[in-house]
Amino acid sequence: MASDTSEPATTTVSRSRRRRGRSDQTHKPQRASNYRQITNSLALTEPFSDDQVAAIHQQALRVLQELGIRVLLPEGRAFFKSAGARVDEETQMVYIGADIVEAALASAPKSFTLRGAPGADRDLPFGGRSLVFGPGAGCPNASDLDRGRRPGTLRDFVELTKLTQSFDVMGLNVPIVEPQDVPLKNRHYATLRAQLQLSDKPPFIFARGREQVEQGFEAIRLARGLSQQDFEAEVWATTVINSNSPRQLDIPMTQGIIDYARYKQIIIMTPFCLSGAMAPITIPGALLLSHAEALAGITLAQIVRAGAPVVYGAFSSNVHMKSGAPVFGTPEHIKTNFGAGQLARLVGLPWRSGGGTAAPWPDVQADYETQMSVWGSVLAGANLIYHAAGWLEGGLTLSYEKFITDLELLQTLAELANPIAFDEDELGFAAIAGVQPGGHFFSAEHTMQRFATQFYEPTVSDWSNYGQWQDKGSIKTTQRARNIWQDRLANFQAPRLDNTAVGQALDYMQACEDAGGAEAVS
Amino acid sequence: MASDTSEPATTTVSRSRRRRGRSDQTHKPQRASNYRQITNSLALTEPFSDDQVAAIHQQALRVLQELGIRVLLPEGRAFFKSAGARVDEETQMVYIGADIVEAALASAPKSFTLRGAPGADRDLPFGGRSLVFGPGAGCPNASDLDRGRRPGTLRDFVELTKLTQSFDVMGLNVPIVEPQDVPLKNRHYATLRAQLQLSDKPPFIFARGREQVEQGFEAIRLARGLSQQDFEAEVWATTVINSNSPRQLDIPMTQGIIDYARYKQIIIMTPFCLSGAMAPITIPGALLLSHAEALAGITLAQIVRAGAPVVYGAFSSNVHMKSGAPVFGTPEHIKTNFGAGQLARLVGLPWRSGGGTAAPWPDVQADYETQMSVWGSVLAGANLIYHAAGWLEGGLTLSYEKFITDLELLQTLAELANPIAFDEDELGFAAIAGVQPGGHFFSAEHTMQRFATQFYEPTVSDWSNYGQWQDKGSIKTTQRARNIWQDRLANFQAPRLDNTAVGQALDYMQACEDAGGAEAVS
Repeated sequence: MASDTSEPATTTVSRSRRRRGRSDQTHKPQRASNYRQITNSLALTEPFSDDQVAAIHQQALRVLQELGIRVLLPEGRAFFKSAGARVDEETQMVYIGADIVEAALASAPKSFTLRGAPGADRDLPFGGRSLVFGPGAGCPNASDLDRGRRPGTLRDFVELTKLTQSFDVMGLNVPIVEPQDVPLKNRHYATLRAQLQLSDKPPFIFARGREQVEQGFEAIRLARGLSQQDFEAEVWATTVINSNSPRQLDIPMTQGIIDYARYKQIIIMTPFCLSGAMAPITIPGALLLSHAEALAGITLAQIVRAGAPVVYGAFSSNVHMKSGAPVFGTPEHIKTNFGAGQLARLVGLPWRSGGGTAAPWPDVQADYETQMSVWGSVLAGANLIYHAAGWLEGGLTLSYEKFITDLELLQTLAELANPIAFDEDELGFAAIAGVQPGGHFFSAEHTMQRFATQFYEPTVSDWSNYGQWQDKGSIKTTQRARNIWQDRLANFQAPRLDNTAVGQALDYMQACEDAGGAEAVS
Repeated sequence: MASDTSEPATTTVSRSRRRRGRSDQTHKPQRASNYRQITNSLALTEPFSDDQVAAIHQQALRVLQELGIRVLLPEGRAFFKSAGARVDEETQMVYIGADIVEAALASAPKSFTLRGAPGADRDLPFGGRSLVFGPGAGCPNASDLDRGRRPGTLRDFVELTKLTQSFDVMGLNVPIVEPQDVPLKNRHYATLRAQLQLSDKPPFIFARGREQVEQGFEAIRLARGLSQQDFEAEVWATTVINSNSPRQLDIPMTQGIIDYARYKQIIIMTPFCLSGAMAPITIPGALLLSHAEALAGITLAQIVRAGAPVVYGAFSSNVHMKSGAPVFGTPEHIKTNFGAGQLARLVGLPWRSGGGTAAPWPDVQADYETQMSVWGSVLAGANLIYHAAGWLEGGLTLSYEKFITDLELLQTLAELANPIAFDEDELGFAAIAGVQPGGHFFSAEHTMQRFATQFYEPTVSDWSNYGQWQDKGSIKTTQRARNIWQDRLANFQAPRLDNTAVGQALDYMQACEDAGGAEAVS
């Protein structure tokens, strides 16, 4: 009897395992899966009623108007004042009327395309059901099985930029690890050099002061071979703006909003509202604060330049109340994401969420927390999911092996958007008629026509049986992931780029560095 | 600046981690989460159009009518014949008219309640958005870190029954591991003894011949203190029926359908259709065959006794075409589940899916494959998800540690159904007004009122930071899981049961065993 609940001698499992020797018949699969522009095909979960979502939005407007937000940068307060907001220079508080916020939401684009290197097929639509994954970002440390856990270095940044480039499912570059061996005044050159030379995907520049940002934009403009006008006509670069929750925008972040908006590049306006710590302990309360802060940043961007591309960010999870540590992939994290998605759709903007894990080691816990947070983000309809691969310890470490093992989920989610072919032949009545009861379809023509490309081929999974796996040395998933990243680095293929243009960007940055670099603003 | 993409000295992560010492203030959490009767609150993904779902159903009726199904048990063929099906005794083929199938679907109940021990609050509704998780089932081997991988024994079955009892999120008993040290003729006594003595959750009896099934029902009836009439008036026991795909029902399975239907107990009618092996390689083709076989079994049950409770089962994944091995958690597995859910809702029956993994070891791959298959099953609206914890190697092994680590996902999914409180106080405008910009909510009254029960408390996750984790001995998730199952077994609390009634059941089974047992039918 075929069975999923019976002893070994009679299982389909063991019967089907007897049919082997097909590998010599397989061709190299040419499966037509698009991991470069991913569509989210899953139904979205919306636990809040329309009235509740509207109430959060209305209360957020009230927070901005009545309670206000502290803006530490005088230029930022001046912009708000110019739009009609009430500003108290002594307390640095800005009180933003609902009309100002609503006008900003009206001018912010509902969709746009983030461009990769021209001709590279790395453009990323933002809006609707688009879905972009970014690797873990902002990690001060890096770790791998061979070299252990250490403060991030430029070498790590370069290697991880190569890995990000090597897998299509990673849509863009992020500040994947902090190269702490490079002085802050030169760090943006070092990280941009890696991104522009080794990758054709959109780059990231930190908002650490106007000089760094403008130099970064100039380098990107040169590397992409663009006029100033062409640069501002389209979207080439991203940065993440974190508000200093609760209700505060600090100097570099405010400066970043202004500078990115001025050049019409993307700010990903992301309050990092941890329930119970920097935000109220309740899910509606955390959403309320996060929404208010996101609206404040988005409003500033639109005041600076109407039509500037903005991504509504929400990266709200909770803390562990016993220690105060932020945790991820919890039920509260998932539910907060659901609400954030509803709020983003209410205001009609593309939105960014984050995966994550608080696990201290790239093992099973790290995997399940990341999975739960990424599934939650996808079911919440996020257009951009940061920290989707490699992020560990609540963001303190980027794990090379976890970067690889997380890919399997992301590729699977991308695969789900592949349409399911459906016609008479796919439905297979004739194929079924051609196989006798108790027989098998292994050698059926219907199977033979399709077997080389029908199924997803995993990156890191080992589908050997236990005996074969032992014979091969009992290599665990994380160890296989190590082999994969090492192989990818050893065989890295730099993308085809306009080398003259890239060279100009490098020369430009070298000249900036020789002139003393650009101090980070804090 | 608060940041999710910045260096360590300035992250919210590190700031929030400075606030510790709260653990001595926490009370034992009394969080009102119901893991016993779970509701699936997620939006369901339905990739097939209504026309496509209807086409699969119509073609399935055509498969049953024109191609037929082989039924190896003469009594089964006689039942089909009595309902008007065309039977060829020589080939054992049964050709079932669409009217017979449709009549069966009309008489099968759309919902019912599977009862646990009376008074134990273990009743499980089936139907609508109900969701029940069962652990891995049918595994010939067991494994744990201390004792390694070995053929399953009664000791394993007993221990795993205790673990199943110990976690509310596991709704029912399954044949979790095969006690290969007990002769088949006595195995049903051994496994039922464990289930009836150590658990108040609904038991499972294999369909291995009428004598075993009837003895099992009698033992359950006695243990639950029921008259024969009361036993048949409600639903107390389950079995899984696997068709022998393609298009065959073997002797014990057919007998099981008849016997369970006769006593109005649940058959979970589950074709195990692996695309490319026992089923067509295409997703619509695998669904077509699986649906036809499920309908055949359900129809037989309804012919035997109209109104008998049936669960529409679908456990279709694909094989790895290079080896023929069944694999799980693949994009194809997830998509097939989506389609199965649509078919189950078309015919209006509660339905059963399965999680799974082909990984050879309970590490990261085992976790991500299980997560993907379980998320796929939940998003497909399955009412019963088998193999949701501990199942490894495509079902060849039940891992004690994986049983524990898988719980975290299942509990999180259960938590998602908790309604999100929403009123003025939860929304927290006043709480936000009470915290200054750049401040924190740790000591806010709004937080203090809620912190003990607001957040999910994990079973196995370690939320220590890296240094603390190292100081505690760098204990990885799987090792922590070992400690947990060992602790649960050492401190197992048997449920409150009617000991007189259970004693009568045990005496009855002892008498059966003394009289020579009951041979398994194959």
